[in-house]
Amino acid sequence: MMKIDILTVLPELLESPFTHSIMKRAQEKGLLQIRVHQLRKWAVNKYGMVDDYQYGGGAGMVMMCEPLANAIDELQQEQPYDEIIYMTPDGKPFDQRTANGLSLKGNLLIICGHYKGIDERIRQLYVTREISIGDYVLSGGELAAAVVVDAIGRLLPGVLNDETSALTDSFQDNLLAPPVYTRPADFRGEKVPDILLQGDPKKVDDWRHEQSLQRTRDRRPDLLDD
Amino acid sequence: MMKIDILTVLPELLESPFTHSIMKRAQEKGLLQIRVHQLRKWAVNKYGMVDDYQYGGGAGMVMMCEPLANAIDELQQEQPYDEIIYMTPDGKPFDQRTANGLSLKGNLLIICGHYKGIDERIRQLYVTREISIGDYVLSGGELAAAVVVDAIGRLLPGVLNDETSALTDSFQDNLLAPPVYTRPADFRGEKVPDILLQGDPKKVDDWRHEQSLQRTRDRRPDLLDD
Repeated sequence: MMKIDILTVLPELLESPFTHSIMKRAQEKGLLQIRVHQLRKWAVNKYGMVDDYQYGGGAGMVMMCEPLANAIDELQQEQPYDEIIYMTPDGKPFDQRTANGLSLKGNLLIICGHYKGIDERIRQLYVTREISIGDYVLSGGELAAAVVVDAIGRLLPGVLNDETSALTDSFQDNLLAPPVYTRPADFRGEKVPDILLQGDPKKVDDWRHEQSLQRTRDRRPDLLDD
Repeated sequence: MMKIDILTVLPELLESPFTHSIMKRAQEKGLLQIRVHQLRKWAVNKYGMVDDYQYGGGAGMVMMCEPLANAIDELQQEQPYDEIIYMTPDGKPFDQRTANGLSLKGNLLIICGHYKGIDERIRQLYVTREISIGDYVLSGGELAAAVVVDAIGRLLPGVLNDETSALTDSFQDNLLAPPVYTRPADFRGEKVPDILLQGDPKKVDDWRHEQSLQRTRDRRPDLLDD
């Protein structure tokens, strides 16, 4: 079973994403354990202080070393982590290959940044991997952590009802997925391509592959360079 | 006030991300209205059917035209939308520039894909913008929608307590943010750079800019090409 611990100052943000649908099923089946920890449990004083002004001045608070270090030290005593991940916009861009790789790990700890981020020294002393889910800034690392957990969790064997489903998703072969259609065959005059209605599996496969290639060329030629 | 409507088959996934912290404050201040609509309200039968097998065969269901079209038609009668956005891995990669642009709009409708995605004809007939939050696959578009709403919402004037804070984030100037430090100056022998302790604002600014540049060159040289 994969175990994921998440450290955050806003555990309440993560209440719903893991308790419904596929992530709920993954946990009920015993394939994934997700624990969300309130960092303030390791605060430096009785007021729950975990952040402070940044050295050098400027807007935005910085998450302090001590609460994070103490939290990680304590959690690590319960179980070693294969990776201690920090969610940050300046991390390595997350992609399907990284999701595939992480889905093979055992225990992960994910640190959610907030405010201006965490003290650089925690990154140097503890963090083994820094991940960005994209080139944009969020209020905190919580949604980013949820995205990573979802992307990884659905790849665990047995989580998706139909295991072949993930294999035909976008990016698993560096191509975008082809267009999809369902009933009715004619919707307000817009028709489903004939080839999908004729039921020749070989022709359908060829058409889908061609559509995937074309869509990738049109929209994301950068994926074909990799 | 910006108004964002979200169409999904799993509204419960989005219960917590918008009801805490910054997104909560944005709504309480009357700067942002977020409504999450259960697509099954527009299902094609009394069993709540909104998806069907895909033409041409293969794993995974496809979200049907009719419920989506009826939902959009009805919601559009209440208020016109500046953009009808579909969250999909084959959409245009979301970035801070797109977030900045969308934060200037009035009314947005966001469609969350699920299963294999939505019928291609809805994309052709209704959708004005297709967004991917990154090159990975999620269980559905809900977390992706939450990410986009968060990235946009925090940019609305008055949402962040300190408006200068967003301006010094990563990506606002195509550079990664510099390292940040807070007390103590010495943590387990790891020291804060002297220049941040000396309190010369000009030198601090120069150091931060140099660190931003260096970090961007090391980690994301692609950002400097843009």
